[in-house]
Amino acid sequence: MTQATRTIRGLSELGEFGFIDLIARKVRPSAAVTIGIGDDAAAFQWQSNCLALATTDMLLEGVHFDLSFCDPSRLGRKSLAVNLSDIAAMGGKPHSFLLSLAIPESISINFLNDFSSGLLEIADEYGVTLVGGDTCASRGGLVIGITVFGDQEEQTIIQRCTARPGESIFVTGFLGDSALGLKLLQEGQGEGKAVTRHLDPTPRVHEGLALAEAGLPCAMIDISDGLLSDLGHITKKSSVGARLYLDKIPLSEEYSKYFGADGHERYSLALGGGEDYELLFTAPAYRKFEIEELFRKFDTPVSEIGEITSIPGIQVLSPAGEMVHGIATGYDHFLSRSGQ
Amino acid sequence: MTQATRTIRGLSELGEFGFIDLIARKVRPSAAVTIGIGDDAAAFQWQSNCLALATTDMLLEGVHFDLSFCDPSRLGRKSLAVNLSDIAAMGGKPHSFLLSLAIPESISINFLNDFSSGLLEIADEYGVTLVGGDTCASRGGLVIGITVFGDQEEQTIIQRCTARPGESIFVTGFLGDSALGLKLLQEGQGEGKAVTRHLDPTPRVHEGLALAEAGLPCAMIDISDGLLSDLGHITKKSSVGARLYLDKIPLSEEYSKYFGADGHERYSLALGGGEDYELLFTAPAYRKFEIEELFRKFDTPVSEIGEITSIPGIQVLSPAGEMVHGIATGYDHFLSRSGQ
Repeated sequence: MTQATRTIRGLSELGEFGFIDLIARKVRPSAAVTIGIGDDAAAFQWQSNCLALATTDMLLEGVHFDLSFCDPSRLGRKSLAVNLSDIAAMGGKPHSFLLSLAIPESISINFLNDFSSGLLEIADEYGVTLVGGDTCASRGGLVIGITVFGDQEEQTIIQRCTARPGESIFVTGFLGDSALGLKLLQEGQGEGKAVTRHLDPTPRVHEGLALAEAGLPCAMIDISDGLLSDLGHITKKSSVGARLYLDKIPLSEEYSKYFGADGHERYSLALGGGEDYELLFTAPAYRKFEIEELFRKFDTPVSEIGEITSIPGIQVLSPAGEMVHGIATGYDHFLSRSGQ
Repeated sequence: MTQATRTIRGLSELGEFGFIDLIARKVRPSAAVTIGIGDDAAAFQWQSNCLALATTDMLLEGVHFDLSFCDPSRLGRKSLAVNLSDIAAMGGKPHSFLLSLAIPESISINFLNDFSSGLLEIADEYGVTLVGGDTCASRGGLVIGITVFGDQEEQTIIQRCTARPGESIFVTGFLGDSALGLKLLQEGQGEGKAVTRHLDPTPRVHEGLALAEAGLPCAMIDISDGLLSDLGHITKKSSVGARLYLDKIPLSEEYSKYFGADGHERYSLALGGGEDYELLFTAPAYRKFEIEELFRKFDTPVSEIGEITSIPGIQVLSPAGEMVHGIATGYDHFLSRSGQ
């Protein structure tokens, strides 16, 4: 969508409540929702004997997305996907969500229409219902806030703080593709698998749920900040350490082709790039076969990439068994501003 | 807090996870929260036999608040208050909340410390627990996103769409004080009751709950956009109209003193100013005595200001019984930009 079509009509013509009506008409009704969009708060029935799960993420123009290479439909999909990924990382079942939008004057009705179509399309794919939200004008860029609700039985939920030394570390999919996709977009290269992984990531909701319900993971997180950073959350919360084997990190064909086959530097985006939204989990080594068996029903690879240790910190080992240093250590929203 | 103290330390020194730890340490533990701050999603036990309520509001610097006359502690209080008000307007019991913050580099640790103290102070006052959230860097202004969860039995929840002709219209507190407070701040006048009503509004949680549990309101909303605008939501959703009596609109002493005793124009901010966070509800006229009796236990006035009619639209009548025209008709976040 070009800038020209984006500004055909200003939102001021439609008004706040006009926009709410526009999106409310697109929402598929759900039996679990007692009061949906259009009241002070949404009301819905939580499943009995389950714990409620809730997660929220805010996406800002210029920080999380760049409208110059991000079409509104995929932006809508990604906004929900990153939140679904958090529910997946708990082994939860997402069921509904709230949407907050701060909208600058330059955003057109066409943009909002495409954005909400993408958003509600992925919502349908994962069986989650938009139950309410909030819209306001922004004097800066577009801001998207989403809160997703889910549930799961208490004994099935997987946390970050429950990894123990000796467990193997597993990861779904390929790592670094999203960061490569962003790099390609910034270099002016339009499409391809890596670009799709960046603009329209797949939340591993089905995989996370199947893993949790099979009681396989001991600790789990989704990779949003980068492998080293997110593994660091598990090790810190669990008071353990980890050892990773560089040659076991799963790289896609496109990634390998772009960075070549040699040198440790080619792992930089896979270890620190972030936004892959793959699941990273620990499990006893003897359950590897069960895990591989479970993943046969999904079109998603799963790889064993290392193990949990009792030594604090994360060691990265080369194929020759040597410690690797100086590879990017993941994303911190604030530290990154000072170049760290 | 002055600009000088606000920039003593940059957030980049603390980092995202440092800030999460800082706020997590301030949060009072709650038995209902199984997994609080620090995992992919929060998990908490919903009360059985109740419907879940959820509401979200996003506050943007330069749109909803101006840091030049808004101290961080009261900004924290207001951010939660406006969401608690939405749960109050349903007759719900709030119990927990999520916080999203997009933080520009200019915001100091001192600012965040005071902001979170104010936020958690009002959370304690209303018995709600911070269970999780999200922080990121902002390249524009400060953005605050809050999602509040509550519950209530289905038959007790009060909606907007259930007003019927013949019912009386009631409102809590005084109207227009928040808008007057903003006007005074913009004119450089520092403190006073109206300024406090603007910077630190009181959500009518106890009043909304007591009304709903007594089965008194037929329809209810909180006044965030202005009396005429929010009454318009009730009449539109309920397919009814309304008649308001200008001389019954409750005005505070400070408001009356500022605008004088004559002319319809003095009602402009009371009818259209917004952000009072008072409750507006309808009830059968014969229950007026019960309503007044119920409010005796609160330090909150309640006033009957008009009635629901079957004629679409809202009529405003002068003391002489004449239709009043040309008074501000409430706030629309988008339409207001084009001067409507």
